[in-house]
Amino acid sequence: MPVATFDFHINTKGHADIIDVTGKVQELVRKSGMANGIAIVFIPGSTAGVTSVEFEPGLVKDLKEALDRAVPTDIEYAHDARWGDGNGFSHVRAALLKGSFTVPFTGGSLTLGTWQQITVIDFDNRPRKRRVVIQVIGE
Amino acid sequence: MPVATFDFHINTKGHADIIDVTGKVQELVRKSGMANGIAIVFIPGSTAGVTSVEFEPGLVKDLKEALDRAVPTDIEYAHDARWGDGNGFSHVRAALLKGSFTVPFTGGSLTLGTWQQITVIDFDNRPRKRRVVIQVIGE
Amino acid sequence: MPVATFDFHINTKGHADIIDVTGKVQELVRKSGMANGIAIVFIPGSTAGVTSVEFEPGLVKDLKEALDRAVPTDIEYAHDARWGDGNGFSHVRAALLKGSFTVPFTGGSLTLGTWQQITVIDFDNRPRKRRVVIQVIGE
Repeated sequence: MPVATFDFHINTKGHADIIDVTGKVQELVRKSGMANGIAIVFIPGSTAGVTSVEFEPGLVKDLKEALDRAVPTDIEYAHDARWGDGNGFSHVRAALLKGSFTVPFTGGSLTLGTWQQITVIDFDNRPRKRRVVIQVIGE
Repeated sequence: MPVATFDFHINTKGHADIIDVTGKVQELVRKSGMANGIAIVFIPGSTAGVTSVEFEPGLVKDLKEALDRAVPTDIEYAHDARWGDGNGFSHVRAALLKGSFTVPFTGGSLTLGTWQQITVIDFDNRPRKRRVVIQVIGE
Repeated sequence: MPVATFDFHINTKGHADIIDVTGKVQELVRKSGMANGIAIVFIPGSTAGVTSVEFEPGLVKDLKEALDRAVPTDIEYAHDARWGDGNGFSHVRAALLKGSFTVPFTGGSLTLGTWQQITVIDFDNRPRKRRVVIQVIGE
């Protein structure tokens, strides 16, 4: 089985809510039965991103504040003027971080560092139910 | 056929011109005849990036302005002092956004959200003809 | 052999040290014996990133300065208040750039542009010995 596709849903609070999905991704790699390959973590939609971070409260705060500095919430966005949903900043953040992240695994285990977690960041301006697609490709 | 590689060219205006390539990527996934796998969208060169965004004029404007704030065009770059081509900011933007983006597909269809388009952003300071490499890996 | 996994180590100076690993990645693609596919360049750990850049001294300087502007070293980070290792900015930078980069190859050669090098950036605040994982998937 060279390709196995899974998905699951997470409930987020929006506003750069950062969710650790490492355990779930690792579980699905195991479930695929493959020994070596890649897991692609992908979020359908244009207001969320995927990355890795040492998942501890200090860094969760730091990352949110860095996003507030880099892509502020309190300036005008043309998207908001046009569509009125107030989440122009969410779209811009997601475009810059991207909702796709690829992690190799060997011997059935993700090649992550000890203090490295795969995280979904929901940039939207409201709580969302998010579908996360995990595709495992390998042998 | 577990790997199929395609390419096509697009003409850009440079200056963070954002081009929607979703239709072309989807067409090439179909052409590969594969049902499940990934499409890698890759731009050879060091002054362009690939990401996804809700492709509407407001966000195109917002994303350009966010890039202008994050990596300004009107400051000095050592690359320009050395090479004189004036596109130091283009290189920095491309290094931060990256010209590689991986999207899973299932049943022959990309797992994108409804309002999510795959886009190439040309950061260069002049019009360019860009080669876009699409590689499809799967089964 | 549809999946081949390799690793090697590099010594970095930290502080956004940028290391060109293109030659090594190309060599490992050749070693895999595969003609077509992808090379995933992945850094285990949460204070380093992978991208591509025209690897010349001007841009190396420009990229470091852009990072200093986007994610400053001289502001307070909650991670530092909690853990005291002073590298909160390193973690934030790595989360934004990400330590995963996927490059297609055809005919045994990476589809990079002429002036495009694959680079590891070590964001940590001290010299590090870094493990780089290269996974080659294809045919």
